[in-house]
Amino acid sequence: MGEPALRRPPVVGMVGAGQLARMTVPAAVALNCDFRVLAETSSDSAAQVCAGTTVGDFGSVSDLLAFAVGCDVITFDHEHVPNAHLSALERITAVRPGRGALRFAQNKRAMREKIVALGIRCPGYQPVSALADVRDFAGRHGGWPVVLKAIAGGYDGKGVWVCDGPEDAAKVLGHGIGVIAEEHLKFDSELAVLIARSPRGQGAAYPVVRTVQRDGVCREVIAPAPGLDPGLAICAQRLGLEVAAELGVTGLLAVELFLAGGELIVNELAMRPHNSGHWTIDAAVTSQFEQHLRAILDLPLGSTAMTARHAVMVNLLGGDEHDLHAGLPHVMAADPGVKVHLYGKPVRRGRKVGHVTVAGDEDLETMRDRAWRAAEHLSPCAG
Amino acid sequence: MGEPALRRPPVVGMVGAGQLARMTVPAAVALNCDFRVLAETSSDSAAQVCAGTTVGDFGSVSDLLAFAVGCDVITFDHEHVPNAHLSALERITAVRPGRGALRFAQNKRAMREKIVALGIRCPGYQPVSALADVRDFAGRHGGWPVVLKAIAGGYDGKGVWVCDGPEDAAKVLGHGIGVIAEEHLKFDSELAVLIARSPRGQGAAYPVVRTVQRDGVCREVIAPAPGLDPGLAICAQRLGLEVAAELGVTGLLAVELFLAGGELIVNELAMRPHNSGHWTIDAAVTSQFEQHLRAILDLPLGSTAMTARHAVMVNLLGGDEHDLHAGLPHVMAADPGVKVHLYGKPVRRGRKVGHVTVAGDEDLETMRDRAWRAAEHLSPCAG
Repeated sequence: MGEPALRRPPVVGMVGAGQLARMTVPAAVALNCDFRVLAETSSDSAAQVCAGTTVGDFGSVSDLLAFAVGCDVITFDHEHVPNAHLSALERITAVRPGRGALRFAQNKRAMREKIVALGIRCPGYQPVSALADVRDFAGRHGGWPVVLKAIAGGYDGKGVWVCDGPEDAAKVLGHGIGVIAEEHLKFDSELAVLIARSPRGQGAAYPVVRTVQRDGVCREVIAPAPGLDPGLAICAQRLGLEVAAELGVTGLLAVELFLAGGELIVNELAMRPHNSGHWTIDAAVTSQFEQHLRAILDLPLGSTAMTARHAVMVNLLGGDEHDLHAGLPHVMAADPGVKVHLYGKPVRRGRKVGHVTVAGDEDLETMRDRAWRAAEHLSPCAG
Repeated sequence: MGEPALRRPPVVGMVGAGQLARMTVPAAVALNCDFRVLAETSSDSAAQVCAGTTVGDFGSVSDLLAFAVGCDVITFDHEHVPNAHLSALERITAVRPGRGALRFAQNKRAMREKIVALGIRCPGYQPVSALADVRDFAGRHGGWPVVLKAIAGGYDGKGVWVCDGPEDAAKVLGHGIGVIAEEHLKFDSELAVLIARSPRGQGAAYPVVRTVQRDGVCREVIAPAPGLDPGLAICAQRLGLEVAAELGVTGLLAVELFLAGGELIVNELAMRPHNSGHWTIDAAVTSQFEQHLRAILDLPLGSTAMTARHAVMVNLLGGDEHDLHAGLPHVMAADPGVKVHLYGKPVRRGRKVGHVTVAGDEDLETMRDRAWRAAEHLSPCAG
């Protein structure tokens, strides 16, 4: 409790400098955190706007350790830091989420085993190494298609293959990476619940949202999930809080869920701010980015209440327009209430380069229409 | 319209790196502006969090010109750039607000003359140079006290003296600076209206707020102004829009008003984001900082609608606690809905070092109580 030490702001180091790190900057400004990012290049999305940018390789333990010196806590923009390096980091500073929790976000097999052990439903799955294993799995789970998923390293639809038959599966197995087979669920909708948990164990859950994916990439998020049974919403929040506690998560946990036949089925976990929570910047009392900082700093968590009846977020995916600023005059003139968030990333087809949010108390379909119009104008023909 | 030029984000340079520049950073992140500040020192409030900080002297024309190179537009965190230097800046880039408008924010005599010429009420005033002038003014305006104001350079109560008699006035005149005498108005309340105006002339007005000052320093802002007659609120917004247009303001204009006997009387003007608009970060669709960027970039203005029924902002003034982080655990635990904004400035008595906002649909007095409790806990005994 020495006064001089306390007078310096807390130092938070985030490994990775993508849009999640970028959108953490405003939260750090308000809370007066000394926020630093470890970027792959000085032009990374967050590196452009963060006063504390270090360029280095998150795959290099020496770069990681050098970055961590002077940080009160290390956290992550992505889940790709090798687990062995996390151990090294934990020896010199607080790492949140820690290695023990992150393992479940890094390894889909370990995650599935843990979820099953907790008695929570997830899709039927099995580690597979040969085509015969996949055929066998298909035989026991209602036939093809079968989903193959990379055990490690996937994101945004990368590392996930829907195989319509053995030929597809053979092609995936030919990559020579560790995969699991999963049943191809027929679900009614996709949901997500965002949880915050602090080291002292305080938990908070945001309203359950509906997510709409296309080609494995999130396109739209609606908060709260329209038409969701209130009892199921509470179940989803409880499930998220339980997973966060049982896995020892500190910081944010996003649980992606399938809703199928009235049942909640865990699809994926992420332990960081998450695309399904971007709406919170404009329509929750506490944004997910502020909440993540509060959680990893072991500060009391903020209110997860919405400031509007509905919020709709639509991602901007890279398309034919390489200058996202070009459409701003039209979009802003047409709809003074739409919130535009640009990530400063070069436009590449299908890449997440920004998002728009519309929040308010109006009719939901009108708001969805406004959000989609803005997104399609800013980044047209984006699939 | 060459594509390559458009693909780079707009470059905005702000002269000054106080809390107003600091709170512009989040808005620049979302809109993907390349936001740069000219700071007096590298530890200035905004310099700590802005990736594009240049250290230099705003009083030096060569520092200003060097900073402006490569900026698409220059704007300001304060009104202290010498008017002659503004001319030099205008020769190389867009300056918003421009020299012509800024003159009225820099020179109280010019401002009063202009306001009177527009037929808008302001307190009775007169340039004074000798004690006899002040005595004479007092005689014609209901006697003492008389307010003396520095014609240039004042802010936050600095440069304003309430003189109870000739001795006080003599002391002020002894400083040897240019002053005007103003009548000491007995007002019912203080109001402020925040206007945005773009170069193409689009205007937007935020809801009129009530401000509470102590010793010339803003302590509390309530949006919208409680109990204000709706007709008067519209008059205040119209007045603000008219002043912005007539003075040729680009960017934000804050008009501080007295409400006296049902009449609106212009007290002060500021041409930048303003303390009376900090609540917009947490309780308006478009924050004043985003609005300022939109206005100076000649983008269509954003909605000024509130996202809550009421918002209360209370400033954190420097007091006995030098570590503003020390109180965060208590404040955040006691009230998960309070929004804390810290400016990263060393605590000095009476200095604005942060603010808190409470927004919602509850009873206003409850919300004021919440905001004041948080502020008093974070920075106790702050006068």
